[in-house]
Amino acid sequence: MSILSKIQGPDDVKKLSKQDLKVLAQEIREEIISVTSKNGGHVGPNLGVVELCIALHRVFSTPKDKIVFDVSHQSYVHKLLTGRNGEKFKNLRKTGGYCGFCNRAESPHDAFGAGHAGTALSAALGLAAARDMLGGDENVIAVLGDAALTNGISFEALNNIESSAKKFILVLNDNKMSISKNVGALSKYFNDLITNPIYTRLYSDLESFLKKSSVGRTVKGFGKKVMHETKDFFMGSSMFEKYGLRYLGPIDGHNIDLLETYLNFCKNSPEPVILHIVTEKGRGLPCAIKNPEKFHGASPYNVLTGENTEHVDPTIPLYQDAMGKTLVKIARKDKTVVGITAAMSAGTGLCHIKNELPDQFFDVGIAEEHAAVFSAGMAARGIKPVAAIYSSFMQRAVDCAMHDVCLQNLPVTFCMDRAGLSAQDGATHHGLFDIAMLRCLPNANIMQPSNEDELADMLYTSIYSGKPCFIRYPRGKGEGVKMKDFPQKIEIGKAQVLVEPEGEVVIWALGNMVSVAKQAAEILKEKGVSAGVVNARFAKPLDVELLKKHALSNKRIVTIEDHSIRGGFGSAVAEFLVENKIETPLEIIGWKDEFIPHGSSVNVLRGQYGLDTASVVDRILKACGK
Amino acid sequence: MSILSKIQGPDDVKKLSKQDLKVLAQEIREEIISVTSKNGGHVGPNLGVVELCIALHRVFSTPKDKIVFDVSHQSYVHKLLTGRNGEKFKNLRKTGGYCGFCNRAESPHDAFGAGHAGTALSAALGLAAARDMLGGDENVIAVLGDAALTNGISFEALNNIESSAKKFILVLNDNKMSISKNVGALSKYFNDLITNPIYTRLYSDLESFLKKSSVGRTVKGFGKKVMHETKDFFMGSSMFEKYGLRYLGPIDGHNIDLLETYLNFCKNSPEPVILHIVTEKGRGLPCAIKNPEKFHGASPYNVLTGENTEHVDPTIPLYQDAMGKTLVKIARKDKTVVGITAAMSAGTGLCHIKNELPDQFFDVGIAEEHAAVFSAGMAARGIKPVAAIYSSFMQRAVDCAMHDVCLQNLPVTFCMDRAGLSAQDGATHHGLFDIAMLRCLPNANIMQPSNEDELADMLYTSIYSGKPCFIRYPRGKGEGVKMKDFPQKIEIGKAQVLVEPEGEVVIWALGNMVSVAKQAAEILKEKGVSAGVVNARFAKPLDVELLKKHALSNKRIVTIEDHSIRGGFGSAVAEFLVENKIETPLEIIGWKDEFIPHGSSVNVLRGQYGLDTASVVDRILKACGK
Repeated sequence: MSILSKIQGPDDVKKLSKQDLKVLAQEIREEIISVTSKNGGHVGPNLGVVELCIALHRVFSTPKDKIVFDVSHQSYVHKLLTGRNGEKFKNLRKTGGYCGFCNRAESPHDAFGAGHAGTALSAALGLAAARDMLGGDENVIAVLGDAALTNGISFEALNNIESSAKKFILVLNDNKMSISKNVGALSKYFNDLITNPIYTRLYSDLESFLKKSSVGRTVKGFGKKVMHETKDFFMGSSMFEKYGLRYLGPIDGHNIDLLETYLNFCKNSPEPVILHIVTEKGRGLPCAIKNPEKFHGASPYNVLTGENTEHVDPTIPLYQDAMGKTLVKIARKDKTVVGITAAMSAGTGLCHIKNELPDQFFDVGIAEEHAAVFSAGMAARGIKPVAAIYSSFMQRAVDCAMHDVCLQNLPVTFCMDRAGLSAQDGATHHGLFDIAMLRCLPNANIMQPSNEDELADMLYTSIYSGKPCFIRYPRGKGEGVKMKDFPQKIEIGKAQVLVEPEGEVVIWALGNMVSVAKQAAEILKEKGVSAGVVNARFAKPLDVELLKKHALSNKRIVTIEDHSIRGGFGSAVAEFLVENKIETPLEIIGWKDEFIPHGSSVNVLRGQYGLDTASVVDRILKACGK
Repeated sequence: MSILSKIQGPDDVKKLSKQDLKVLAQEIREEIISVTSKNGGHVGPNLGVVELCIALHRVFSTPKDKIVFDVSHQSYVHKLLTGRNGEKFKNLRKTGGYCGFCNRAESPHDAFGAGHAGTALSAALGLAAARDMLGGDENVIAVLGDAALTNGISFEALNNIESSAKKFILVLNDNKMSISKNVGALSKYFNDLITNPIYTRLYSDLESFLKKSSVGRTVKGFGKKVMHETKDFFMGSSMFEKYGLRYLGPIDGHNIDLLETYLNFCKNSPEPVILHIVTEKGRGLPCAIKNPEKFHGASPYNVLTGENTEHVDPTIPLYQDAMGKTLVKIARKDKTVVGITAAMSAGTGLCHIKNELPDQFFDVGIAEEHAAVFSAGMAARGIKPVAAIYSSFMQRAVDCAMHDVCLQNLPVTFCMDRAGLSAQDGATHHGLFDIAMLRCLPNANIMQPSNEDELADMLYTSIYSGKPCFIRYPRGKGEGVKMKDFPQKIEIGKAQVLVEPEGEVVIWALGNMVSVAKQAAEILKEKGVSAGVVNARFAKPLDVELLKKHALSNKRIVTIEDHSIRGGFGSAVAEFLVENKIETPLEIIGWKDEFIPHGSSVNVLRGQYGLDTASVVDRILKACGK
């Protein structure tokens, strides 16, 4: 029986011998590799924090102590150590399995949920400030990757640490994905700081602490090690000390003993402290170390070769690649076209322009707001920016879309991938609200293609429209249609009739729901209901002329969208009918007004929530009284 | 004839003698005081940047060179120097007058518009990156107040300066409103830096520059001054140099000569540079210096005494004060209730809790995202946070409302003041989109009171609801109703019938439009149309029971809201009717799908856009075919 299988909670972790801890770390790595190689998931980040999470659960006691993970994609180890080993872990990210992120509803050990970057410091500060008000004595620990520090919220929080909390621990998990350059720049300036009085004070604190601590005594030569390492402590210290955090580190994040010693020091610090640890992303899995970006969030893979094991039809491109490759075609002809990403060049397909036309590519870090305003600034000077931001992350830039882009009517194109479901990631990553949040903005043009070739046309159309444009499209593969060699313009605000309605039902479908509508129409025909099908293309502006014509000449309109039913495309159609005093019944089909959890696949979730073809057919038959 | 009256553009500023510049500065101050004392406006910030703006327009040449002002509330001087002196300036912030902020539609000298904080660096970086791509040689200057650096977007941009632009000038206008503490903390650590090689390099650059420059030679003893001041240069330098900016300063921001010298140095710097200037907010107006918060954005005032001159009825409280004082009442009884503001304690009415219960108050800086996530963190630990954020600034925190608050169903109350119009500020400050952006969020409760006593009840209800609540209410005074000594709970999702409908028309009005609806109903009655009136109270959840009853028993429903017609309350009613297959005609009255500009008053704008009582009556009569 493995050690891992006997871990029912953090208490069991605390009882283990040092030798057993090493075995446990190995078993955890094996379990994570076993599960993620089948289910996909955030392999690299979790393999990097195995020792950190073991040490955290030996030094601290959740659920009383609160550990807040930034993004929380690196929470698998934490889940395994807090009673979440077993079948549900084997089904991680699948229907019935655990969520791939921290989730307050899943376990009291998950102090705060996340999925988007940059929130851990703010949330943990809130927990700590509340503790101080209520007279609690628990520890609050925020665990951040280095990339989280490129996000503005982290800095807003840093600026408040001194005033918001007495005791507070920030563990900066530096796997050199993002801030290494900054640390390097700092080190140029602060070599002298070794002689700073602060150093002396900290060193004497640490020394006396270690003398008292049994852990300190047993770490062989630790005193000398501290002496040696303390210079490094201060290489990057000033940035954090300016914000009122005592800085410790950098230390080896794969040494459990060392981590425990330092975490115990942090636990006893009466003031906010940052522990800077250095870890290796993907540790223990050679293919993940070799290709950290791919194995950050991976599809099912072969453990030995690292190759994807999901059957992928190479003839059907992903929407993201259709966008990215089309952008390269356009940008090659027009040097004023650029691609802008917020740290998602692979996921958004901007890797193509990054590789082929690097001078026309900007990666601004996990900074969606800056990406949007920077794009607006470029547009104001005659550049044609394409900002590719996932739908759910675009929520961060809604104010910028209003205040900087639409209000000034600047020609920025937003490519919102992952509109609709990100099935295995769940509620934090589904893109079900973008139309509602953006449709209220004057000057906004919001569209969704029904296939990858139309995406190319919409991208081209948007870039040369001279207007703020928002193109939403789903995660994953396209429809497998033939793509033209070069895209062509389509008319903004015009829908496309695919099946001419005959007076009974007309289905106005948006984007990827067009294929569902077409299938539904065929089944309905068999059942004696005649249904026209329209590829709506635009959520704003609506094709009001065609919509009016259809509303006046058909008994019933049905809208289908891969978006919440609240405030979306169907809602826009309802507004139009009301404003035009058209009483034709309307059926709005979309995701119900609930947070949709993760599930094994888009199809599974569509089935559960009434968005698969069969459910759509039933809804329409019922609406027709059949 | 004054010097100011002869200024038709920046060229005229460049021609003036040093003596004339002093006179000009004085005339500008007089004009700003004269206009703002009548119209209200951002007095303090503009009086602080008179010399800076004169120096900027002497050293740089707009519109070719691009000056981007953060928030741009400090752009009055810039407007006066760029051909916008005269009648329209006298009508600043009024219908037909200039906007109180930079506006690309108003003048080519306004390189980028703003109204919300923290965007200048990002926008200016975009302009500079575009320039570099297009081979331009113009200068790009971002002018930021110190408070802008508490906003995360500024840091996201700082992190990108090195990689985004070759030449770039950041003028940090430090009037000690916000970052002085940080600068102080820095200076503790970096006294030694005077011996840093960087200092030597910069000093020799500056020295050789000054030797070549006629300005440098004419500044008496400037070399020595530099020697003396250079120590100060580096007190706060590291933070910015870490981001790849060469740091200059701090220098006296009221010395035009000195400013010109340094700005010329910046202009000639081949790499990004920050010039840190120190200015006095309100300079030249004693009452503004004495009370910088009040005179940041002031109502019309007496120039000598500083007292407000607008007739204010002291018996009718502002909505913000009704909220703030009620919060104090509740928080006094319940120590787990706290108020959180993003640098707007006066405007949101949180000044009351700040003064009376400071331990239950948090000001986090201009950091709406952090405010929201911090609130969520506190709520997760048993505190009942009330985050007061203006409606238009709440757009910044939409993702946090989704990802941190509603998804986790945490009991945070958001008080969204300035929902509806902020008439004289205009499009950047109107709060016309909040319902649309938030209504799509599952678990959200969105409400608007019809008067200040109901606001108190809604605040109390929300705090003890255990749910995410969003209360929107307008800028300015309440309805003058009697306020109860202590608020009481109302039922969530229940509307209130004020005038029982009689089968013809029923008006469902939200919030401040209830009084318009009541007046309209009375006029309609005189004209033979019977109209019921409902105080809808909730935009989500709707009172579906009552709505259904009314829809089935009346010929027509009318909704009125102080919000865009796209995705708002009326849109929610339309969705409900559609979903319930109710064909009763609906008339949605709200702000049309356009950006609404500034205007002299709410009433003036309502008249223009069809939201005054007379227009509402006409709309309803027309809908009834009368």
